[in-house]
Amino acid sequence: MKAHQRKLDIKNGCIDLSHGSGGRAMSQLISGLFHEAFGNEWLARGNDQSAFDVGGGRMVMTTDGYVVSPLFFPGGNIGSLAVHGTVNDIAMAGARPLYLSASFIIEEGFRFSDLKRIAESIGEAARVAGVYIITGDTKVVERGKADGLYISTAGVGVLTDGLDLSAEKARVGDRVLISGTLGDHGVAIMSKRQNLAFETDVVSDSASLHDLVAEMVAAGRKGIRLMRDPTRGGFAATLNEIAHQSGVGFRLQEETIPVKPAVAAACELLGLDPLYVANEGKLVAIVSPDVAEGVLAAMKAHPLGRDSADVGEAVADDHHFVQMTTSFGGGRIVDWLSGEQLPRIC
Amino acid sequence: MKAHQRKLDIKNGCIDLSHGSGGRAMSQLISGLFHEAFGNEWLARGNDQSAFDVGGGRMVMTTDGYVVSPLFFPGGNIGSLAVHGTVNDIAMAGARPLYLSASFIIEEGFRFSDLKRIAESIGEAARVAGVYIITGDTKVVERGKADGLYISTAGVGVLTDGLDLSAEKARVGDRVLISGTLGDHGVAIMSKRQNLAFETDVVSDSASLHDLVAEMVAAGRKGIRLMRDPTRGGFAATLNEIAHQSGVGFRLQEETIPVKPAVAAACELLGLDPLYVANEGKLVAIVSPDVAEGVLAAMKAHPLGRDSADVGEAVADDHHFVQMTTSFGGGRIVDWLSGEQLPRIC
Repeated sequence: MKAHQRKLDIKNGCIDLSHGSGGRAMSQLISGLFHEAFGNEWLARGNDQSAFDVGGGRMVMTTDGYVVSPLFFPGGNIGSLAVHGTVNDIAMAGARPLYLSASFIIEEGFRFSDLKRIAESIGEAARVAGVYIITGDTKVVERGKADGLYISTAGVGVLTDGLDLSAEKARVGDRVLISGTLGDHGVAIMSKRQNLAFETDVVSDSASLHDLVAEMVAAGRKGIRLMRDPTRGGFAATLNEIAHQSGVGFRLQEETIPVKPAVAAACELLGLDPLYVANEGKLVAIVSPDVAEGVLAAMKAHPLGRDSADVGEAVADDHHFVQMTTSFGGGRIVDWLSGEQLPRIC
Repeated sequence: MKAHQRKLDIKNGCIDLSHGSGGRAMSQLISGLFHEAFGNEWLARGNDQSAFDVGGGRMVMTTDGYVVSPLFFPGGNIGSLAVHGTVNDIAMAGARPLYLSASFIIEEGFRFSDLKRIAESIGEAARVAGVYIITGDTKVVERGKADGLYISTAGVGVLTDGLDLSAEKARVGDRVLISGTLGDHGVAIMSKRQNLAFETDVVSDSASLHDLVAEMVAAGRKGIRLMRDPTRGGFAATLNEIAHQSGVGFRLQEETIPVKPAVAAACELLGLDPLYVANEGKLVAIVSPDVAEGVLAAMKAHPLGRDSADVGEAVADDHHFVQMTTSFGGGRIVDWLSGEQLPRIC
């Protein structure tokens, strides 16, 4: 059918309701924009699902919705963020990410040119991570019913070596490792949102961490209890969740926690605590003391883990508190916030 | 932590931004509402991903976003619809659905009581289908940035017997089977949306079709070319897609196509053609002529396929047209609509 070959006017065109209708316009959008940006042999078959072979064993599955505002920010956009976030949730189980799905909910009037940039970022992030977007869906809602674009991604991966990392596995005496500076992503978003001009531009740390995880697993396999990427709610929320689920407390040393000076300055300006600010390219690992040094060395040897640090330990505490010895030698409880700190940070 | 046991006020409470923050309020929402409705051993572990064992072989993955308006409609709601739709996309590959993920994007101010009804429908639909929601995500956006609630589900399943159904596999001479009456879902939604009072209440056909598919595969295995669930764009869009992807045409007999009288009447009133109206519990199967009779008998023997019919055949046509002999003996081309017929029908 000739109509299939009609080109989208990507420079000037916009999404309208027909692009979510299941008809010809949707088909044109999918082939003319999404397949151009992240097409592959699976998507090319044009089915509502895709098949792939697995060798048997244990797999992991994850999903995340992305509602970040603004859609474009220093260091990435909602598309790359969606790939990195889903890859990382798979990687945190110690699994190798394989295949992703992408569900787009798009507001009428959204510019094709912006959609193309986002789709290309998805393609690029997937290529870098070595994963494929093998199935997807597009829905369009009326003007005013979404804030531009939301993306939900899901992903599957394989666990090849019998790892069973899980939130209840932290034990008293375990070390707390983090893979780098805290708060970069959240501050990058907030600076863009509020049009603040910081002296140093802070860029999101959004990145795929599965290679880093593979190095860590190679170095400390049996001793790694669990890993988490401290996104919404930041490092503080992540540690509180783990404390609760494992039935331990944590004691941190503030002076060991890496925070970029520009992020620290921005947080002070914005009234934020970097411990609560989202990261999108960092991980927290709880490891047994005997492997901590080896795992930390492996982390530091990886480009995405250069600023890794051992920042504290799991302790016996019936209250499951996260406590921190401050740089001045005092102590504070790092509670999780019960309210909202930074909405729509991811 | 005591705060964890604090009860949500489900009767009177609403979603606020804190329920998407990654903090304590989100944790309460997840354990107090979602886990109550569709919890299981995987969700109970509280990780950002879940692991499961597979026997090896071929798997399928799919995703869909749900933006249906209204959220509650005769015969279901957005929750049951999301499960049925994802189960069906897996089933259309001839695969057995196993595990689903669910990503919720919720508007600030959304009532807990409505969310609970939706979550319970997810739980019920999953139980009936024999699948598990093993991982999920919750995001909250500000008032006015979503129309209540959007859900994106993804799912995985296993292909156990070497089937490779795909949209390019229709061949000239193949029969076109449909599993029942067309247009029920779309008309149920439109009647509710427009507050129309039809003489007979039309109810959505939303249902999981994997059992029906298993019976069909058992009856006609080698001869089944492909299956599709004709959702958005209806039967017409589905057949046009298949025609295009397989490089054939189709010729249909209008008098063989089952449409409920109430649906036909409503469509006339609304100016719609049932061929273009969405279905959520029907499938189209393209099968080789030698197995058509056996597969059709298997369909009719299943509760969800009682009104199944053989409605036409694939023909040689360089234009890939879908043509129909009308009940009056005339002919028409069933083109796919290039615009939007029924926005947000699923």
